[in-house]
Amino acid sequence: MSLLVVGTVAFDELITPFGESGKILGGSGTYASMAATNFQEDPRVVSVVGEDFPEEYKELFRQKNVHTEGIETVSGGKTFFWKGRYHNDMNSRDTLETQLNVLGDFDPKVPEAYRDSEYLMLGNLTPQVQMKVLDQMNKRPKLVVMDTMNFWMDVALDELKEVLKRIDVLTINDEEARQLSGEASLVKAAKRIFEMGPKYLIIKKGEHGALLFHGSEVFFAPALPIEEVFDPTGAGDTFAGGFIGHLSHTDDLSVDNMKRAVIYGSALASFCVEKFGTQRLAEISRREMHDRVMEFIKLSQIDMKLD
Amino acid sequence: MSLLVVGTVAFDELITPFGESGKILGGSGTYASMAATNFQEDPRVVSVVGEDFPEEYKELFRQKNVHTEGIETVSGGKTFFWKGRYHNDMNSRDTLETQLNVLGDFDPKVPEAYRDSEYLMLGNLTPQVQMKVLDQMNKRPKLVVMDTMNFWMDVALDELKEVLKRIDVLTINDEEARQLSGEASLVKAAKRIFEMGPKYLIIKKGEHGALLFHGSEVFFAPALPIEEVFDPTGAGDTFAGGFIGHLSHTDDLSVDNMKRAVIYGSALASFCVEKFGTQRLAEISRREMHDRVMEFIKLSQIDMKLD
Repeated sequence: MSLLVVGTVAFDELITPFGESGKILGGSGTYASMAATNFQEDPRVVSVVGEDFPEEYKELFRQKNVHTEGIETVSGGKTFFWKGRYHNDMNSRDTLETQLNVLGDFDPKVPEAYRDSEYLMLGNLTPQVQMKVLDQMNKRPKLVVMDTMNFWMDVALDELKEVLKRIDVLTINDEEARQLSGEASLVKAAKRIFEMGPKYLIIKKGEHGALLFHGSEVFFAPALPIEEVFDPTGAGDTFAGGFIGHLSHTDDLSVDNMKRAVIYGSALASFCVEKFGTQRLAEISRREMHDRVMEFIKLSQIDMKLD
Repeated sequence: MSLLVVGTVAFDELITPFGESGKILGGSGTYASMAATNFQEDPRVVSVVGEDFPEEYKELFRQKNVHTEGIETVSGGKTFFWKGRYHNDMNSRDTLETQLNVLGDFDPKVPEAYRDSEYLMLGNLTPQVQMKVLDQMNKRPKLVVMDTMNFWMDVALDELKEVLKRIDVLTINDEEARQLSGEASLVKAAKRIFEMGPKYLIIKKGEHGALLFHGSEVFFAPALPIEEVFDPTGAGDTFAGGFIGHLSHTDDLSVDNMKRAVIYGSALASFCVEKFGTQRLAEISRREMHDRVMEFIKLSQIDMKLD
C-alpha cells in the first residue's frame, strides 16, 4: 500500500568507542523510510533539508525507491545537524552539538500525490509539525503510527495530546510511557494512554525488547542479545519504519499481524546497530532479513508441556 | 528428586508505597524453598537462625513439607534482620537497617541425611559458606545452581571464583554479569563466565524478563507486565527456587527443560511480588500456577508465516 513517512532528514556525526563516523546521513525520516524499503514498499518522505544537502544522498534514497519529492530544499538554508558521543556501554550518550537550522522553521508541505497515502508514519518531530501533516491528508489514513520523545512531553504536552487523539499506534520508551501517563506500572500507563487516543501502544525498551499493548492484551517481543553494538543511532526510527513497512506491505491490521510487525521492526533495528548510520540498513538482503526474523522467533520459542 | 537449599532464613521489615509489613519471615533460603514446594518437592534447608526465631515460622515450613532439621538455632543468638524502603517506582530501594547477627559466624552443617541430595541450590550467601556446603556433600550433585550478588564480587571475588568452578548454573542480574565478566555486551559476558565454570548463565532482569545462555544458545524469557507490584522482596530467590524446583521434580536436564524451568521460576516470581513476604507463595494452587505459566507462554507467542 502507499506509505508516507514524515521525519527529519539530517546530518549526524557520531563518536563511539569503535570510531568516529564523520558527517553522515541521519534523521528519523531517513531511518524509518530506509527500513520500510525492505518490504518492497516505495515510501514517500516529507521532510526539509538545506542547500548543503548533497545530491548523492538524495540519489541514495531514489536508488532504494524512496520518493524524495516531498523533501523540501530551503535555498540558503543549512540541514539539521546532530553530533553525539556514546559512552562505553553504548546505552547512554551525550549530545555534543545540535544545529536546528532549517528544521527550526519547518512548515511541512505534503505533495498532492501523497495526500491519499493509506499508511502514515509520523516520525519524531514537534507535535505541531505532525499535526500539520495530518491536516493536509485528503482522508484519514488506514493507520497512523506516531513516534515521539520526552522532550515534547516537557515543552509541548498540550499539542502532543492533540495529535495523540488522531493516531492509532504510539511508539515510545518505558520512561516516556511513565512520564506521559503519570503511572509507574506500564500496564496502568497503557490504560491511561489508550484514553488519550491510541488503540495500540508500543513500548520500546532497547536491549530489553519491546511490549505491544492493545486493550487488555500484551505481547512481549524479545531483543536479540548482540555481541557488539557498533552504533545505536536510529534504532528506534528503524523499528518504527520496519513496523509500519510490514503492515503497509501486508495491509493486514489484525492483532496477530501487529505482533509480527513488532518482530520485523525489532529485526531491522538489530541490523541498524551493526554499522554507522544507515549503512547496514541499505544492504540487507531478503534472505538475511528472514534469517534474522527466525532468530527472533527462536529466541523466545519454548516447547511447553504442562504436567 | 532430593533438593537441598542453602540460604538465609531471616526477618525482613519492608516499607513500600502500599504500606509497612512489620517484622516478617524472609531470607533467600526461605523464598527459594517455599517456591520449590510448588513442585511436590520436599526441599531440605540448611541455614541458621537465633533464639528469637519463632516456632510458628518453623511450623510454617513444615506445613509446606520443607525439612527444617538443617536450620541451626544458635542459643542466645539473634536472627539476621534486614529493613528496607522501596521507592515509588518499586524498582529501587534503600537499606534502612542490616543486623547480620548469627549470620556473621554462620558455619553451615549439612545433616548426614542431606549429603546425597541430587539438586543443590546455593542461595545468596558468602562464597565461603557456599563452598563449605559443597565440601560437605558426599557426591557431586546432579545439578548445582548458585545465586550471588555484586557485594561478593566487591569483597570476596577470589572465593567467589573458586565456587564458580564447581557449579552448573549461575543466576545474577545484568549489571552483575557485566561486573563479573568486565564485558558490556551480555553475549560476551556469558562467554567469559562460561570460562569460569558454569555451563548455564541466567541473567535476571526483573521487569525486563530473563535470559538463559548455554553455549552459543540464548533463550529470552518474558516478564509478565504487572499492574501493581506490591512487594518485590525475594523475587530473585523465588525465581531460583522455582527454577531448580521444576528441574528437581522433572529430573530432566535438557536445554528445553531448562527453558521451561526459567518460565516456572518467572511465573512464581510474578506471584511473589503480589503480597508482602512469602504470603502469596505459600498459597498458590496448582491450577493458578498452570494458568500463570500459560500467561507467560502466551505473552511471547507469535504465529509467524514468513512471506
